[in-house]
Amino acid sequence: MDLPEYIDGYGRVVPHEGICLQQESTVQQRLVGTTRERHHKLLKTIGDAFDACAIHDGATLSFHHHLRNGDQVLNMVLAVAAERGLRDLTVAASSLFPVHAPLVDHIRSGVVRRILTAYMSGPVADAVSRGEMEVPVVMQTHGGRARAIESGELRIDVAFIAAPTCDDFGNLNGVEGRAACGPLGYAMVDAQHACMVVAVTDRLVAYPACPIDIAQDNVDFVVPVASIGDPSGILSGTTKPTTDPVGLGIATAAAEVIEASGLLGNDFSFQTGAGGVSLAVAAQLSAVMTRLGVRGNFASGGVTGQLCDMLEAGLFRSIFDVQCFDLRAVDSYRRDSRHMAMSASLYANPHQRGAVVDRLSTMILGAAEVDTNFNVNVTTGAPGNILGGSGGHADTAAGAKLSIVTTKLLAGGIPKIVERVGCITTPGSTIDVVVTDAGVAVHPTREDLALRLKKFGIDVRPMQELLELAEQRKTAGVQRPREPQQRIVAVVEYRDGTVIDVVRAVP
Amino acid sequence: MDLPEYIDGYGRVVPHEGICLQQESTVQQRLVGTTRERHHKLLKTIGDAFDACAIHDGATLSFHHHLRNGDQVLNMVLAVAAERGLRDLTVAASSLFPVHAPLVDHIRSGVVRRILTAYMSGPVADAVSRGEMEVPVVMQTHGGRARAIESGELRIDVAFIAAPTCDDFGNLNGVEGRAACGPLGYAMVDAQHACMVVAVTDRLVAYPACPIDIAQDNVDFVVPVASIGDPSGILSGTTKPTTDPVGLGIATAAAEVIEASGLLGNDFSFQTGAGGVSLAVAAQLSAVMTRLGVRGNFASGGVTGQLCDMLEAGLFRSIFDVQCFDLRAVDSYRRDSRHMAMSASLYANPHQRGAVVDRLSTMILGAAEVDTNFNVNVTTGAPGNILGGSGGHADTAAGAKLSIVTTKLLAGGIPKIVERVGCITTPGSTIDVVVTDAGVAVHPTREDLALRLKKFGIDVRPMQELLELAEQRKTAGVQRPREPQQRIVAVVEYRDGTVIDVVRAVP
Repeated sequence: MDLPEYIDGYGRVVPHEGICLQQESTVQQRLVGTTRERHHKLLKTIGDAFDACAIHDGATLSFHHHLRNGDQVLNMVLAVAAERGLRDLTVAASSLFPVHAPLVDHIRSGVVRRILTAYMSGPVADAVSRGEMEVPVVMQTHGGRARAIESGELRIDVAFIAAPTCDDFGNLNGVEGRAACGPLGYAMVDAQHACMVVAVTDRLVAYPACPIDIAQDNVDFVVPVASIGDPSGILSGTTKPTTDPVGLGIATAAAEVIEASGLLGNDFSFQTGAGGVSLAVAAQLSAVMTRLGVRGNFASGGVTGQLCDMLEAGLFRSIFDVQCFDLRAVDSYRRDSRHMAMSASLYANPHQRGAVVDRLSTMILGAAEVDTNFNVNVTTGAPGNILGGSGGHADTAAGAKLSIVTTKLLAGGIPKIVERVGCITTPGSTIDVVVTDAGVAVHPTREDLALRLKKFGIDVRPMQELLELAEQRKTAGVQRPREPQQRIVAVVEYRDGTVIDVVRAVP
Repeated sequence: MDLPEYIDGYGRVVPHEGICLQQESTVQQRLVGTTRERHHKLLKTIGDAFDACAIHDGATLSFHHHLRNGDQVLNMVLAVAAERGLRDLTVAASSLFPVHAPLVDHIRSGVVRRILTAYMSGPVADAVSRGEMEVPVVMQTHGGRARAIESGELRIDVAFIAAPTCDDFGNLNGVEGRAACGPLGYAMVDAQHACMVVAVTDRLVAYPACPIDIAQDNVDFVVPVASIGDPSGILSGTTKPTTDPVGLGIATAAAEVIEASGLLGNDFSFQTGAGGVSLAVAAQLSAVMTRLGVRGNFASGGVTGQLCDMLEAGLFRSIFDVQCFDLRAVDSYRRDSRHMAMSASLYANPHQRGAVVDRLSTMILGAAEVDTNFNVNVTTGAPGNILGGSGGHADTAAGAKLSIVTTKLLAGGIPKIVERVGCITTPGSTIDVVVTDAGVAVHPTREDLALRLKKFGIDVRPMQELLELAEQRKTAGVQRPREPQQRIVAVVEYRDGTVIDVVRAVP
């Protein structure tokens, strides 16, 4: 990678050089007010919270994304900031979705100067890609964000917590109410470390809220509003496996890889995303585990109804859940004590005493593109524009014993196996296997694994061969810009805070 | 109070001057190691944990008391310290019981130099009272201990957590296993803030333990041992209300006071201890609440089966539980999601964003003696020897709207209502009512309450009259020493860390 030594608006660049992580970390100090002064936490408006927290120009406000594309809290809060004429705010949002389009105006008007996030899609991502921000966005991983917050590297002045249910003293949960979204794993870290914490709720209940995901000792103020989010954008009813035959073929192959790997014992653990192919892998894996009589230790994630089905079928003993992807998962978390919440730090922070990702047997990962060094890009699209980000991608890849990327060889005629990815989200050294519709590639350092797969009858091919196949079959090309003269619009941090890549403006 | 300005071995004395508490507090920093270095947390012996944590002369080791008089962890750990020839350790134990008698030898031999605790009874208390420690014991409240730990005032080098169930990565709970004792509320604070955390368990389960009270991200090492405690000393099967007619009369009067107070609405909340009279108050109150159709918000505490019965009868919507007093309560916590764990900080820390005690309607408190200023002593006996300590006494009294002390006028012929208590555990300014078998006294600042009680037909009397009655009826006297020439053996801290009294050696 050609990384500059210094990036304006970001600072000195510590380049990523392999997965050796820092040895020690401190948990930041924070100042907390005294009970006696805070007996009345209930405020009337978000504006009152700005006053109560003395939010000033240049402040860092944080948000979490459990309400996903239905979230209204970030927009409401920044609208108040704009009304008040505040400037140069830093927005530390665990993810940004198309619903956050109004943020583009706040960037243009100077209300927001800086963004840190683990994922962005939609108008904000487009505006950033076009170079509309003066200061580059910092793209974190979910675990890296938790690390940065706990260590004090990312100091949050005020965390705004979207609370589907909350009492007047700040006890809150995500499982009851109109905007029910499941456990609030990302928000837990913000609530524990921000200087001030404001819960914004559309369901104020009698004290105490029960159950409690985030407790009163981490909440300064409570603001009731008419609506914190649009349920139709928060979750799907149920996430469903793909029915596309190519996708199904990839899923079947991925499940075979897991079976062949030798990891399918009673200490097996598993994570997958909510995409159609990922869900199809889970479905195929269910069949394999049932056939073999395997009862694994845990599933984790971003949890879908499908993982809950596997729990209830006895295929896993428990679930670690940082956020729900569908209503079925929310319902499971509400009813089943084996379905446990986890904070983003417990999930994936590399500088803690041990994250759940470090105990993963297998992770199923998606990819926008994969290169011959097994590097994965889920940050930018083929033309170089931002269309996502790591989320937990790099975290789980680093932690899991067997990290499997599933991808079609081509999408829309454009190769997804490439010589060199447009942006490195996840380093190839943490990827074990790439499963495509044209065969399976195994990372060269995993010769043991390649042997096992071949013995199992799996079609293992060199990555170079998959690249060539993709080139042969392509029906469309992309002018890959990555021109060094273009301005840096985003800095991609690895989970330990080192810089693994940069994103440049789309010309 | 005649407090010295400086106490050897303690330092400068900040005298307690009313309940105005410090305005702001910082949560201390801590250094945590990195996952990569800690993948193998499982050690063979407690000695290995001493090596792994580099425990040195003068280190501060912390312990929690959920195993009560059945605890074997503190003794095991200090035996190892003694074997290794360590000296001058500080023991920060949330409470000390008769089972901790071996600690006396460690004091004498110089292994242990300093003790901080919220309660002590048995041989250790006796040794301290006799003046066997060079350095005075610091007697904290449960909330004050949490405050001191969070603020860094009490810095714990290594916290030892007695874990009834634990996995190899440090996820642990208190509800399963031979030594099941309920939620580990006191240990939660130590685990969150100690520099190093060692879980000691006699039930090692497959990863992940489920449910989880303290998670892997707060635990450095796990040591399996044959037994962490003797179940017969940990909990009673069921705690039972008194059947003594005098005690029952006091309980009935206390329940009448609550009914008369006007607090019995649907926002009612309640805490009581596990003593026979306290339990009888709960029984009487149950009858009143049922008669009036009141459904309160929550019960909290130190939880007994009786509070669980009230939850199940619909008299409360939820329970906040920092520790269980009986097996019935453990079972309720295991089964019923309305029965919620709370940390000692959430329970009672005065420098947090709001403790549960601050939301209490009514607290039922015991007393060794009460004086005409309503000050309560639960720290020393009539001869001046240490026999207990605040625990949550001073915390709940400060928080509750209606703090009721129940006490007999005399015990063993000795007055319990006195001119001046031998030691102030809880300041009279935080006590509203004293209920005795000879009438009820109301704090002079609560004229409103006195009126309500009188209207209700309750026998309200001046405290001076109760004192005189006690003097008339006494059949035994005590030579109260409290001689200023005696050496200070314990410093009694109020919950905010100010000094409210001292205990001097028993002559």
